[in-house]
Amino acid sequence: MSEKTPEEKLAEATAWWKTGIIDIHPGAISIRGYAIQDLIGTVSFPQMIWLMLRGDLPTQAQARLLEAALVASVDHGPQAPSIAIARMAASVGADLNNAMASAINVLGDVHGGAGQQCMELYQAIAADAAGDLPGAVDRALEAFVAAHGKIIPGFGHRFHPVDPRCEPLLALVEEARRAGEVSGRFALIGREVEAGIQRRTGKPVPMNIDGVTAILFCELGFAAPLGRGLFILARAVGVLSHAWEESQSGSRMKGPMPRTIPYTYTGPAPRQVPKPDRSKT
Amino acid sequence: MSEKTPEEKLAEATAWWKTGIIDIHPGAISIRGYAIQDLIGTVSFPQMIWLMLRGDLPTQAQARLLEAALVASVDHGPQAPSIAIARMAASVGADLNNAMASAINVLGDVHGGAGQQCMELYQAIAADAAGDLPGAVDRALEAFVAAHGKIIPGFGHRFHPVDPRCEPLLALVEEARRAGEVSGRFALIGREVEAGIQRRTGKPVPMNIDGVTAILFCELGFAAPLGRGLFILARAVGVLSHAWEESQSGSRMKGPMPRTIPYTYTGPAPRQVPKPDRSKT
Amino acid sequence: MSEKTPEEKLAEATAWWKTGIIDIHPGAISIRGYAIQDLIGTVSFPQMIWLMLRGDLPTQAQARLLEAALVASVDHGPQAPSIAIARMAASVGADLNNAMASAINVLGDVHGGAGQQCMELYQAIAADAAGDLPGAVDRALEAFVAAHGKIIPGFGHRFHPVDPRCEPLLALVEEARRAGEVSGRFALIGREVEAGIQRRTGKPVPMNIDGVTAILFCELGFAAPLGRGLFILARAVGVLSHAWEESQSGSRMKGPMPRTIPYTYTGPAPRQVPKPDRSKT
Amino acid sequence: MSEKTPEEKLAEATAWWKTGIIDIHPGAISIRGYAIQDLIGTVSFPQMIWLMLRGDLPTQAQARLLEAALVASVDHGPQAPSIAIARMAASVGADLNNAMASAINVLGDVHGGAGQQCMELYQAIAADAAGDLPGAVDRALEAFVAAHGKIIPGFGHRFHPVDPRCEPLLALVEEARRAGEVSGRFALIGREVEAGIQRRTGKPVPMNIDGVTAILFCELGFAAPLGRGLFILARAVGVLSHAWEESQSGSRMKGPMPRTIPYTYTGPAPRQVPKPDRSKT
Repeated sequence: MSEKTPEEKLAEATAWWKTGIIDIHPGAISIRGYAIQDLIGTVSFPQMIWLMLRGDLPTQAQARLLEAALVASVDHGPQAPSIAIARMAASVGADLNNAMASAINVLGDVHGGAGQQCMELYQAIAADAAGDLPGAVDRALEAFVAAHGKIIPGFGHRFHPVDPRCEPLLALVEEARRAGEVSGRFALIGREVEAGIQRRTGKPVPMNIDGVTAILFCELGFAAPLGRGLFILARAVGVLSHAWEESQSGSRMKGPMPRTIPYTYTGPAPRQVPKPDRSKT
Repeated sequence: MSEKTPEEKLAEATAWWKTGIIDIHPGAISIRGYAIQDLIGTVSFPQMIWLMLRGDLPTQAQARLLEAALVASVDHGPQAPSIAIARMAASVGADLNNAMASAINVLGDVHGGAGQQCMELYQAIAADAAGDLPGAVDRALEAFVAAHGKIIPGFGHRFHPVDPRCEPLLALVEEARRAGEVSGRFALIGREVEAGIQRRTGKPVPMNIDGVTAILFCELGFAAPLGRGLFILARAVGVLSHAWEESQSGSRMKGPMPRTIPYTYTGPAPRQVPKPDRSKT
Repeated sequence: MSEKTPEEKLAEATAWWKTGIIDIHPGAISIRGYAIQDLIGTVSFPQMIWLMLRGDLPTQAQARLLEAALVASVDHGPQAPSIAIARMAASVGADLNNAMASAINVLGDVHGGAGQQCMELYQAIAADAAGDLPGAVDRALEAFVAAHGKIIPGFGHRFHPVDPRCEPLLALVEEARRAGEVSGRFALIGREVEAGIQRRTGKPVPMNIDGVTAILFCELGFAAPLGRGLFILARAVGVLSHAWEESQSGSRMKGPMPRTIPYTYTGPAPRQVPKPDRSKT
Repeated sequence: MSEKTPEEKLAEATAWWKTGIIDIHPGAISIRGYAIQDLIGTVSFPQMIWLMLRGDLPTQAQARLLEAALVASVDHGPQAPSIAIARMAASVGADLNNAMASAINVLGDVHGGAGQQCMELYQAIAADAAGDLPGAVDRALEAFVAAHGKIIPGFGHRFHPVDPRCEPLLALVEEARRAGEVSGRFALIGREVEAGIQRRTGKPVPMNIDGVTAILFCELGFAAPLGRGLFILARAVGVLSHAWEESQSGSRMKGPMPRTIPYTYTGPAPRQVPKPDRSKT
């Protein structure tokens, strides 16, 4: 399959795993060029997250917005599928890493990952809007609904008429905008999307946690898939906390509902297995 | 299966998913009794992690130690199994939540989860030591080796003769001890375990990242399994960063080594499938 | 949130988990209406798989084709990402269920899940072709390439010039067609897609395991996503076998390459951490 | 770190991934020495599973017992944690590979993996029993309860007074014993364990699916961890079937219980976030 020399193959192997994130030598670890011992005790955890993902340290103002988004997103209760999964996993004795994995695995497009789609929507609007923001929003919503259906990621909540996490996060964005730290452009876009949905549907569909953190992450310049990644880092805290609480509760083999509530069988009535056809060749 | 009334069954269902972590009502979310809007912008992400796991907010000094341990643990390079898994997953198009899940899943006893075992060792020594720390350490090491073999979790590294993350973390513990914020007891224990291993083996086996973060987590009063949980929250940052970097690299179906380096087959030589026995009844 | 009575809520809970697959009562289990004790020892494992997924038992001829597709798909070597993941997981002490989960998790669109996309392609051609099969194939390939790029799922292999699993599977389809057990329509479509790709590209891009099992699964009437599901049931055998072999090998913390082959760092040169900005409010 | 030559490093890399399971060359795949094209259409899926795990083909009688154990184990309803996890994952749009991974991940010691522990118990009894089977059973139960508590894996069921899967499987073992295909030794051991538990507890604790499949797997000479592995291969069918059924149901973000049934909050009453301590250095 190859006429390469051993030296060439070895060079290829050395280049196979390459990264710009971390450099390691015996006794030395550096992250994005910074010695690990210089970072420990100096940078905050959100700053470290930013450094790992982006390649440079954020300003304090940027780190503060990122920190607020992370704090806001840690948990939304034990009946969210991800958290219920983590708790059931803990009840069958799964170690915390395993319980966390099963739970984090489901944080995709529909459950938590909606922030990614919302960021893509905002970014499409930002790329289109030259002066006429409402027009750009209406065009983007039209295109989104045609492609994906009428649920707009980041807006509406089955439970909260108003999501209590939105206003404090938007207030922090406004504070940063006044200080010249962010443009405020995506806060405007988010609010206009909220208005645009009301124009389309005739009723208020208020922004939810995905819609507001998407504003923060766009203001901070993150790529859309990292919106999901950051949400996972935050929700991992809730997943861990619930798995831990469940593991301390003494439950064992916890199903989704108590055993006294049966499930409903909707399949065929009892029937006979047909006589096996022994003609198998 | 039950003579319970509908009311009783419903009460049982309501009690089935119970938690002391989070309370949610329409328009209101509170974490451990604190309204979410009062936490956003006020507490740091490490403080929020502590609140979720422990039930109360830490002091600034406690949060600072936790933050340093998290910062120190985010990554150890692309050839760690967890990170290689995340990168291979990204190369086959796995979404970030899925790539993270496959990677986090392997952070067990041997890989990263060693901090949990090390905390158990330290805590056993702390419970045993009444004045005679070296004696308690020797007894604990003796028992550990008898039960689990000669690799002591938290000590020794295949790569680093001295782990560069240890000294800055120990310096922060010492700083907190002088300020009366932590007892310093587990720093002593960790150092004595290092000495005890040298007494047993006749050679230095220096403390590694698991051994030093175990000191911090014990000083801060975390239960041992949460040592693993906190490590995962930190390493999740590295997992995400590497999965993201790989997903942007254009790789596709990346195996562990380049294709020009074949693997070794050690099984039987080519042979004929035996004539199928058609007597199956 | 609800004015429902306890009885209504309880009825809702009972209906929440409903299934047509399995009915369970104390001392009695039935699958799709068949008592489990009547199935044990009577139906083959592939027949049981079919019953679970489709609701009825297959004929012997149908089961034989399904069995052959499963047998053909169990493994493709330790350097496939999924298998490398399973083996690395085993080397860090993951239990077999955990090692299998991390591996199966990556069997998506690019890695193994290609059969699902290939089935969708075949089914689109089948829906379009009224007499003019080559024309329908060319239209479908045109549309696929426009939407997804030039790699046609189920055709071409980086390693095998001809995939040795194709001919024996196609021979079984032909045998079943002659016996009147399947239509043979999708075998024609698969072969025509192979020809159509050669018309487009000017070179042979032979059918691979995904392309040929997609023929079998389409002939058998499976929905496209179940093509992936069935592949996973088969590859799970390889995943388990490799995880088990690795767990017996004595390896520990096995990275993707030996430690003597370093990875390549492509990031910034060593630099100083900027003086922390203490202005954080 | 190494003075090895490129040739030596390359040889080390080639040996890094080694396996006795599968050999692959361009156009050729062989499993345990058998060409894949000779296996397809010739061996059954259970025979292939055995070949992959054990290195040689089983007899028809052995394959028949394995097949029956697999058929018996595919499913136990939507309220088992693994199945509920798969269904919730499907309801948030997880692809089938991801839904299956989250579910399979929890099939550990407590949930399904009990067969592994039960096999270890049987094998310990087999190694101890020289004539006095009841004595060996009583000693083994004594030791097990001392080490692990009073729940004996493989015996007792929260739902079934008698597990309907036991008798047909034991009948197949007896049939194979009479034909001289298996020793029947582990069937005796399993029955004696059942009797021994009744001697200890004074009440019948009948064998369950884990206890009976452990008999079959021990009779067939499988290592105990493979008992879990084989169970997973079987239960993966149920996991897939339920995930698929849920994905076709139109559900979205399905929590464990209907939203009209709230969960219970047990934490602190509403309280004020303490004034942030700005003394952080």
